[in-house]
Amino acid sequence: MSTIVAPVNSNPIDDAQVIKKACLGLGTDDKAIISLLGHRNSNQLRLIRQAYQEVYQEDLIKQLKSEISGDFEKALTLWVLDPVERDAVLAHDSLKKVVPDYQVLLEVVCTKTPDDLLQVKRAYHKIYKRALEEDVASHSTGKIRKFLVGVVSTYKYHGDEINEVAAVTDANILHDEILDGASVHEEIIRIISTRSKKQLLATFNHFKDIHGTSLSKALRVPAENEFFATARVAIRAIKNPLKYFAKILRRAVKGLGTEDEVLRRVIVTRAEIDLKEIKELYLERNNISLEQAVTEDTSGDYRAFLLTLLGAEGY
Amino acid sequence: MSTIVAPVNSNPIDDAQVIKKACLGLGTDDKAIISLLGHRNSNQLRLIRQAYQEVYQEDLIKQLKSEISGDFEKALTLWVLDPVERDAVLAHDSLKKVVPDYQVLLEVVCTKTPDDLLQVKRAYHKIYKRALEEDVASHSTGKIRKFLVGVVSTYKYHGDEINEVAAVTDANILHDEILDGASVHEEIIRIISTRSKKQLLATFNHFKDIHGTSLSKALRVPAENEFFATARVAIRAIKNPLKYFAKILRRAVKGLGTEDEVLRRVIVTRAEIDLKEIKELYLERNNISLEQAVTEDTSGDYRAFLLTLLGAEGY
Repeated sequence: MSTIVAPVNSNPIDDAQVIKKACLGLGTDDKAIISLLGHRNSNQLRLIRQAYQEVYQEDLIKQLKSEISGDFEKALTLWVLDPVERDAVLAHDSLKKVVPDYQVLLEVVCTKTPDDLLQVKRAYHKIYKRALEEDVASHSTGKIRKFLVGVVSTYKYHGDEINEVAAVTDANILHDEILDGASVHEEIIRIISTRSKKQLLATFNHFKDIHGTSLSKALRVPAENEFFATARVAIRAIKNPLKYFAKILRRAVKGLGTEDEVLRRVIVTRAEIDLKEIKELYLERNNISLEQAVTEDTSGDYRAFLLTLLGAEGY
Repeated sequence: MSTIVAPVNSNPIDDAQVIKKACLGLGTDDKAIISLLGHRNSNQLRLIRQAYQEVYQEDLIKQLKSEISGDFEKALTLWVLDPVERDAVLAHDSLKKVVPDYQVLLEVVCTKTPDDLLQVKRAYHKIYKRALEEDVASHSTGKIRKFLVGVVSTYKYHGDEINEVAAVTDANILHDEILDGASVHEEIIRIISTRSKKQLLATFNHFKDIHGTSLSKALRVPAENEFFATARVAIRAIKNPLKYFAKILRRAVKGLGTEDEVLRRVIVTRAEIDLKEIKELYLERNNISLEQAVTEDTSGDYRAFLLTLLGAEGY
């Protein structure tokens, strides 16, 4: 469920005017911007962007970028993007890094239904004039490339039908391949990238029943294996997205320093989907609320904005 | 363009009645069936199937199967299927053969736009409760599996944008990889399976300009290479579908015996799309019309039905 507190009736032209006013004159009224844009859902934000363009002949995101900066700007401009476009941009930017961040790509892809992923791919075509698969293949190599391209490209079956025999067979194939140090892992690639989510969940269950440990844990045993580490991200995101997001949020704020990129990405991308459940799980597992963790690790407008998206009291 | 001669106004209930009447009594009135179903387009056929189900509580295809047999039955029942469903069935059946026929799969996939291919995948989910990618991966191995899964799964970019620099680079990469006997052909797989059709056409042109021979011919040089042979099918189907279909039709009727599976598949699947152009090219290249070739190589109702689909005079 969403953590966004948005008015039922809002007027995009009035909203655009509030933003414009907050941007005019010396200094920017960040509070006004946060309390407006942080309290609008993606449909409302889309209309505000349109109204802003029509009334002021300016792109709202460009305007915001010229007014604010740093983590606050990054979080806010990510938030104002249309969700499908935002996923395309996240996938693209993660691939274009000097060291590509496959975790972001896998997160975008593995937490989507096949039809939602398709929308992201269409947005990717529209923005970048290339296929997502093309860029994935161009920014990876070897086994990891095969895995990523497979996971990204397949239009998976999304129905309820499960083949239990195949689930048991696949569980055993996965087990054998993990133990086989010489393997090129064709079967892990085939199974994770082509089987449906429900079929994979059945396979993961059989794996645990037969081999006494989860697939995810089994993949952690051979240390320093980049391929297994990549496969684990996909498996965790497919198996239990809530747990996956709660875990990476925890890691983002734990210890010295904060992984702000992870923190804002998860809060922004999940706010309208399942951030409420992620918050509950976070509290249950860490004995500290996500709001409190964010309060401790961030400051200023950035903090205020994240807390607004989190639906924190007083924001 | 279509070769089907169909009436503008036809009544599916009347049509269903004609078919029912042709099936009643001793013997079947094959001529009536051919002259009706061979003169209806896919929308009309869909409505006739529905009408048949509603009026007679019978599946038209099952009814036809119980009345006729052999090549005629195979061609007619393939024809009556909805085009998208038909492609899903063709892809499925080609994979389920004792020796899978990847040519049919590649033909279905490589002659489609990304969105048409998507419709076929959706039909595949609906009929088989699995992803097409899943069955492709389960019925192939090694390099050929990687190639097939790649080509089948990618949701390609379908716009006009071309990257000329990448086209030249790709052409050179392809050339080097063909010469490298030790290669696992990762780059051929990447390029053919992820690049858009227009981008690939640019690459094929640069290949010919730089290396003095077409990519397709270059792949024919290392004899007995099953991987290259598979890649060639895809490349020919992408590059020039008309030429590809005209060629396989020619091979199907040439010499002793006829490859009826190819003959009826191409005529049935292309009748409403580009069979007119395929016929023109066929005549131009072989100095014999496709109608004449079909007349010489087939007989009886099967012949009459194929000639009807071909829009031959007097049918």
